Amino acid sequence: MEQPGSYVYEYPRPAVTTDCVIFGFDEGELKILLIERGIEPYKGRWALPGGFLDMNEDAETCARRKLLEETCLSDLFMEQLYTFSAVERDPRYRVVSIAYYALVKLSDYDAQAGADTANIKWFPLSEVPDLAFDHQEILRMAIERLKGKIKYQPIGFELLPEEFTLPELHQLYETVLQTKLDRRNFRKKMLSFGLLIDKNEFLSGAPNRAPKLYSFDKEKYEKLSKEGFYFEL
Amino acid sequence: MEQPGSYVYEYPRPAVTTDCVIFGFDEGELKILLIERGIEPYKGRWALPGGFLDMNEDAETCARRKLLEETCLSDLFMEQLYTFSAVERDPRYRVVSIAYYALVKLSDYDAQAGADTANIKWFPLSEVPDLAFDHQEILRMAIERLKGKIKYQPIGFELLPEEFTLPELHQLYETVLQTKLDRRNFRKKMLSFGLLIDKNEFLSGAPNRAPKLYSFDKEKYEKLSKEGFYFEL
Repeated sequence: MEQPGSYVYEYPRPAVTTDCVIFGFDEGELKILLIERGIEPYKGRWALPGGFLDMNEDAETCARRKLLEETCLSDLFMEQLYTFSAVERDPRYRVVSIAYYALVKLSDYDAQAGADTANIKWFPLSEVPDLAFDHQEILRMAIERLKGKIKYQPIGFELLPEEFTLPELHQLYETVLQTKLDRRNFRKKMLSFGLLIDKNEFLSGAPNRAPKLYSFDKEKYEKLSKEGFYFEL
Repeated sequence: MEQPGSYVYEYPRPAVTTDCVIFGFDEGELKILLIERGIEPYKGRWALPGGFLDMNEDAETCARRKLLEETCLSDLFMEQLYTFSAVERDPRYRVVSIAYYALVKLSDYDAQAGADTANIKWFPLSEVPDLAFDHQEILRMAIERLKGKIKYQPIGFELLPEEFTLPELHQLYETVLQTKLDRRNFRKKMLSFGLLIDKNEFLSGAPNRAPKLYSFDKEKYEKLSKEGFYFEL
């Protein structure tokens, strides 16, 4: 392997970064977590958390490290999204970014600005400001991925608390898919998958006819996903 | 932007390559196109076509350029698969590889070894030799992607000639999904999607009861895929 300390290469190399789109679901809205850039380029602009790949870590390790450093979040559901490599995507020099997306149960986590981060904030998708670099394009692709995946993988459950009600699940699907879903049909289909565990409890604090609480059966899902299935809603 | 010609960087950078899994379908078998490496490391071993990213091209441009240089193939259906970044995946130095997969209509193309390539060959999936680098892992993921995608995108048609018969389509699905599919059910469901155009012709050279020829309706598909659909087979 090449010697560390000598960074003279025969051919030019791009710098490699990771960036991460972090989705949360709160008060019936899909939100993403952004950081305010404290340095140039794009100083003062909002951007996805991320940063440069170290030589001793793979891309996912880098994405998780930057998330922890910049947002104090860890142990999230995370998947690789796409690698962005347009030649002029960074005004400084050639940078290839391996993008990830992560899903947060907002009830479990409290995001905080890390030591190097000026500011950090959850933005509803409808209020996302003009982002730095090509992060708008990365966000657009992450939203498409989430929309596609929620139909054949139960990743939506990663956005809900451990226990949730069917109305909450219904609202999540409507929000992600950006479409109205018939309440009765949704309920029937969702229950037919056999993925929900009835907790035999009711949402506390709710008035009469409080909705029932459910949790998600991960073992059942693992079995089903091997056979292949589809959340046709 | 940084000056070309000076490849001295403040921090070490990984080299970046692209690699491509090329699928073809021939005589009822799924095949992949491999090249024999003419240089170290892994000299004489079979590998995916690919190579180093130039500073003035994005990753897909690089993948298509390497394909043309090494296999003389162009204008293929191609999609990004995943970026592989394990620290020790290349014995020389740190290399991050952006992997693609491509689908070839074997009837339209004739792959040939490019000037720099020792040898090139289509291997049935069941006869793929031990590959160089982590290319076995890249191949495994590409097969999974193809299996998943064929259920909700008609990418299978990219592997068939412009005109094909239902038995050919049936065999393709069985091969990719590695499972038996009831012939009558398959026929009924496939026709119900409304994606096949009846050419009102029959396979020439076939004996009595020659199967009908079909082609694929791309416009219809574009419309359907916006609404979301699923090839449940």
